[in-house]
Amino acid sequence: MDRVGLILVLEAGLSSPLRNRVRDRLRELGAQVRVVDGGERTYLEVSGQDLAIRTLHPQSWPGVSHVLPLTPPHPHASRRSDSDSERAVPVSVATGSGEAVSVGGDDLVVIGGPCSIEDEGRTIALAHELRDAGCGLFRGGAYKPRTSPYAFQGLEEEGLRILAQVREETGMGVVTEVMDSADLPKVVEIADLLQVGSRNMQNFSLLKRLGSVDKPVLLKRGYASTVEELLLAAEYILSGGNHRVILCERGIRDVAGSSQVILDLGAVPELRLRSHLPILVDPSHGSGAAHRVAPLARAATAVGADGLLIEVHNDPTRALSDGQQALTIEQFRRTMDEIAAIHRALPATARDIASREAETGAFPGIVATPGKD
Amino acid sequence: MDRVGLILVLEAGLSSPLRNRVRDRLRELGAQVRVVDGGERTYLEVSGQDLAIRTLHPQSWPGVSHVLPLTPPHPHASRRSDSDSERAVPVSVATGSGEAVSVGGDDLVVIGGPCSIEDEGRTIALAHELRDAGCGLFRGGAYKPRTSPYAFQGLEEEGLRILAQVREETGMGVVTEVMDSADLPKVVEIADLLQVGSRNMQNFSLLKRLGSVDKPVLLKRGYASTVEELLLAAEYILSGGNHRVILCERGIRDVAGSSQVILDLGAVPELRLRSHLPILVDPSHGSGAAHRVAPLARAATAVGADGLLIEVHNDPTRALSDGQQALTIEQFRRTMDEIAAIHRALPATARDIASREAETGAFPGIVATPGKD
Amino acid sequence: MDRVGLILVLEAGLSSPLRNRVRDRLRELGAQVRVVDGGERTYLEVSGQDLAIRTLHPQSWPGVSHVLPLTPPHPHASRRSDSDSERAVPVSVATGSGEAVSVGGDDLVVIGGPCSIEDEGRTIALAHELRDAGCGLFRGGAYKPRTSPYAFQGLEEEGLRILAQVREETGMGVVTEVMDSADLPKVVEIADLLQVGSRNMQNFSLLKRLGSVDKPVLLKRGYASTVEELLLAAEYILSGGNHRVILCERGIRDVAGSSQVILDLGAVPELRLRSHLPILVDPSHGSGAAHRVAPLARAATAVGADGLLIEVHNDPTRALSDGQQALTIEQFRRTMDEIAAIHRALPATARDIASREAETGAFPGIVATPGKD
Amino acid sequence: MDRVGLILVLEAGLSSPLRNRVRDRLRELGAQVRVVDGGERTYLEVSGQDLAIRTLHPQSWPGVSHVLPLTPPHPHASRRSDSDSERAVPVSVATGSGEAVSVGGDDLVVIGGPCSIEDEGRTIALAHELRDAGCGLFRGGAYKPRTSPYAFQGLEEEGLRILAQVREETGMGVVTEVMDSADLPKVVEIADLLQVGSRNMQNFSLLKRLGSVDKPVLLKRGYASTVEELLLAAEYILSGGNHRVILCERGIRDVAGSSQVILDLGAVPELRLRSHLPILVDPSHGSGAAHRVAPLARAATAVGADGLLIEVHNDPTRALSDGQQALTIEQFRRTMDEIAAIHRALPATARDIASREAETGAFPGIVATPGKD
Repeated sequence: MDRVGLILVLEAGLSSPLRNRVRDRLRELGAQVRVVDGGERTYLEVSGQDLAIRTLHPQSWPGVSHVLPLTPPHPHASRRSDSDSERAVPVSVATGSGEAVSVGGDDLVVIGGPCSIEDEGRTIALAHELRDAGCGLFRGGAYKPRTSPYAFQGLEEEGLRILAQVREETGMGVVTEVMDSADLPKVVEIADLLQVGSRNMQNFSLLKRLGSVDKPVLLKRGYASTVEELLLAAEYILSGGNHRVILCERGIRDVAGSSQVILDLGAVPELRLRSHLPILVDPSHGSGAAHRVAPLARAATAVGADGLLIEVHNDPTRALSDGQQALTIEQFRRTMDEIAAIHRALPATARDIASREAETGAFPGIVATPGKD
Repeated sequence: MDRVGLILVLEAGLSSPLRNRVRDRLRELGAQVRVVDGGERTYLEVSGQDLAIRTLHPQSWPGVSHVLPLTPPHPHASRRSDSDSERAVPVSVATGSGEAVSVGGDDLVVIGGPCSIEDEGRTIALAHELRDAGCGLFRGGAYKPRTSPYAFQGLEEEGLRILAQVREETGMGVVTEVMDSADLPKVVEIADLLQVGSRNMQNFSLLKRLGSVDKPVLLKRGYASTVEELLLAAEYILSGGNHRVILCERGIRDVAGSSQVILDLGAVPELRLRSHLPILVDPSHGSGAAHRVAPLARAATAVGADGLLIEVHNDPTRALSDGQQALTIEQFRRTMDEIAAIHRALPATARDIASREAETGAFPGIVATPGKD
Repeated sequence: MDRVGLILVLEAGLSSPLRNRVRDRLRELGAQVRVVDGGERTYLEVSGQDLAIRTLHPQSWPGVSHVLPLTPPHPHASRRSDSDSERAVPVSVATGSGEAVSVGGDDLVVIGGPCSIEDEGRTIALAHELRDAGCGLFRGGAYKPRTSPYAFQGLEEEGLRILAQVREETGMGVVTEVMDSADLPKVVEIADLLQVGSRNMQNFSLLKRLGSVDKPVLLKRGYASTVEELLLAAEYILSGGNHRVILCERGIRDVAGSSQVILDLGAVPELRLRSHLPILVDPSHGSGAAHRVAPLARAATAVGADGLLIEVHNDPTRALSDGQQALTIEQFRRTMDEIAAIHRALPATARDIASREAETGAFPGIVATPGKD
Repeated sequence: MDRVGLILVLEAGLSSPLRNRVRDRLRELGAQVRVVDGGERTYLEVSGQDLAIRTLHPQSWPGVSHVLPLTPPHPHASRRSDSDSERAVPVSVATGSGEAVSVGGDDLVVIGGPCSIEDEGRTIALAHELRDAGCGLFRGGAYKPRTSPYAFQGLEEEGLRILAQVREETGMGVVTEVMDSADLPKVVEIADLLQVGSRNMQNFSLLKRLGSVDKPVLLKRGYASTVEELLLAAEYILSGGNHRVILCERGIRDVAGSSQVILDLGAVPELRLRSHLPILVDPSHGSGAAHRVAPLARAATAVGADGLLIEVHNDPTRALSDGQQALTIEQFRRTMDEIAAIHRALPATARDIASREAETGAFPGIVATPGKD
């Protein structure tokens, strides 16, 4: 028998025919089932096909009282329990200089750039500044998801052309968003790292296509998506054969948040525990306001992220999108100094998972309930 | 005329009698009103009584199109715009040793202790350990707000007695929760710092009584309350005459959070901008799980908090409350080392407000809308 | 052995000593434990003390993989599984006329009145209008929880006096909020139904005192509280000996709601399934705006609520609190006609629980996960 | 000068050059600006280009204190203020019988069918049952957005073929989801009504393409999207030239909801006030559990929706998706009887907007703040 992946606890006093109906339904679906009789309840230990069976909501089947998943629903995205490594498995991103950037290794990787590519001259000038400040990767949107149809929608192909030029002139790697499977071929040609935006985290058609692309993917968490859903979205890409996925926490919605968006930095140790994928944090979208970007960039560094994604603009008050949260170059440089100092002060183990967890015996993936005071 | 605190923008094409009705209603309520005729709209600039008028929802009055508050609704809790200082105004907390602890000054203040006081011997042993690890203040609950009536409800008066002993034997200051105005006299007698828990942040009867008490108050943010509501709760205490209020971010609820609770570290720079009150962070309640406490304690330090509130237990798996999020003493010591290293690495300006904010011209209190990718 | 209330599933491959440690810890806490060996896992079936044990978070104990509660955590608030009745067990509320109002029976009970008692003459005039429109119970706040200390805080004792007069002159029963245990004796003397407001749903000190009072209690759901927490709050009162508790859904917070508050009408069938307590709905607080009150009052009637709580004011634009959501008397009368027509059209079974539930075999209390399109 | 669409309130005491900088920036962007000097503040009344200017976040520009939008950001989706009609403008959907179904007229339109098309025989049998129970439109998913890559992903083209057969054999109109712009041509060929699912509400690439399609679109609200964002998503389609858009409320996420999804029925009167587009409600996804579907279907009818979308399955416990929320045919028939009775009992004005709103002077689109008790 395979490893048990699922346990069904049946209702007390269930009649034999109903009990067998549940068992037979599981077998019909391709699973192996061992029936364990307890004092009061019956337990069905299920192996094989358990990932698919879970998606059928067996807790709503007649006679089933509880359903216990024993393995994570995203095997490719999960840390292997016998893993030697306590850190991320690094993902390599190519650059224009020929030297790849490793995301998830010892260095903190900072990806800087404007929200949208707006203009050739200013974009290239900004890229040079960012490279000199220590960025190996440059971000900029050519295709832009905008809430209003009356907002600037991005330069599209012209934007890609400018990015290609940034790559050539500065030697940086370029990161840009792909919004639709129809645009994928054009974007793949230019980008070193393909960004999936928050609104597309569950665009499953797009995720499936990214599974067969030979470029790394930066997958941003949906603004109202759980960590589990983020890992399941990554699983679409990984199970398709593309192993280079980088996760990104960028803030979620909350009615009571200090702004409409709230950066979930607790997701970083949570993801570290569950997954071997590198984790970036975006303090720009995660704060929504320039005066909070530097403090949250420092916090993201201290919490143990593998890198940051920061919006910078030559003149934020004239930006065609997201100007309210963009840093000036001067502010960006100061932020780089602060996070470098914190990164140096971090103990070597701060990006590990094992130590603390092992001692308290916490089980990866338990749902904690909040305390009271 | 006083300083204008409120502007009402009237609907376009409003008839003269309706217009006068709004103006007269404002005057009846004690306000001074200046009528400004624009090209298309009429603007009523209101001074005096504007704080009370806002609570009447004038945006629902016939003829009123928009209501603009120009001053914060909590004058005592707000940073004065002509303030010289760029930091918190420190709050002093007494201790058993005679030497007060200053919260909001240059030092990072760490308050440690168990969720509940459970037993005399172990409590005092733990307190000695925490003092030796660098804590000047000891926390422990005698009155406990518990979701279930079948949970341990605290030792009550016996718990207060044990806290008094901790104070005497270790020289620490003691912090404990007051849950009800009826218990206030007993708690005031013992505690150096009175804690108002998350579930009581809007217990207005209790807040009013705390306004006339001669002890500092640690006010925890409600688990679904906005930063504005936190400052209004502080205003109840401050306007009653008690100027020693310390704010505490302890996590809020979110359906998509990596746990049911999500620590809103962006609230720290937001509160710093708006208020002169010191700000602590509670990474224990703010994470809900021991393996996330150290990373979030590091992040809270880096974001610029004035201190931390951390739950520690001699034997977390036997704790009568919140054991799942308590650190062992060994884990606590290691966490103290990590946050001390980060605190030292922080630039001197990391707890200021002014620099970054002034440059971008952000207005304190604007509602930022979240970005898109 | 008692009925099993809890099952602990241990981790795979757990050593014998660790396994025994968990079993012994449970016995130490007073529970009976049966050890069931499965093919891969060990199951501990626990009876006795299971309600208290659950509050200790055994899922965080070393070696424990899953914890399954088999009974609801609030036995007094829960529907008995062998219950004959499919409806609420009615709660009787006294009135000034000597004839009690039954909440939870065949009639839809509408409680009307202003948010705050502001003035004697207008209050009594309004009460007469409401009685004539069909209300047997009158609501009005004497003690008011207000977010801002600069808002009208209620007439307090003078308000109670006016309510007593309403009772005498109109023969209605009166409903008013109690905010603090210190005010309880005064409020108990006057009120026929004691209201616990949303912000006090987890004021456990107050709930404990209400357990020994001889008046029915109207318990409003916290604005960010789950249905489970509402039932646990009711359990505090019920287990204290006061069996007359009426629940009230009044809307919860949501970042994406069509207003900041969102009325959770799905809570009505959910509570019906789990509890025998009558359920009211408050479409005034649940909408936050007058133009949505009538539609939501109709919806609450159709969903199967036992009654409604509606704010009415002689002149909403002059109200000292909540004017934006109060109906005029004329609007209220029209709403009463609409809901009466819907109540008559409802099939007799619309407030039952059993029929639909039995057929699909849904288990009360399962956590449903949302669908995808 | 055009109608003023935007007002900028400048900061008090702003220097003349800064003031002119704001004014000139607006003119540069193509707007006309009238400068109004108040007693303390300056007001800039802006006309022309105001929709685009708003998307630039002028509240973050130096010197700007408040930004007041005076017109809705989605002109095509908004009710015209001089509209004669008080109801929806109906949208016509073709069927296999040649007789169109009008959505938004006097009749309540019920769209029934399974979550996924799983099999030809059972699908056609079910369609016949639903047609006989009164459904003119049949729903069924061929392309399925599934959270897990290990879940059933839909029959895709084979599913479309079966839908075409349903159409031909029963004479019903067919409704199915389009997930990706690449699949659009195939789906357009078959479907009478194109469904955009919750996860695709902000798939802007897809929305743009739907703007030039000659089929009506059923646009479901994102599970964490505001009413404003729903109308902006509709605006993408409408401004592209496709005027046949039907909105659908299907529940949003909330941490405290009685299930993970909470049906926002207050959105129906809110959308009615702001938009002329017909509004459906989906009580199946909006409840997540079969025992709540009928009560919420009744509530949606009573609140004034134009129709319902209900999942029905021949054998819910064997469904390959969403079985836990599907009704049996027998349950569906009973639900149809209940909602028909309620629809008949509704007063003629229940789906109008004007009456109540006019009397209280509420302004469409104000943000109401929630009450306190």
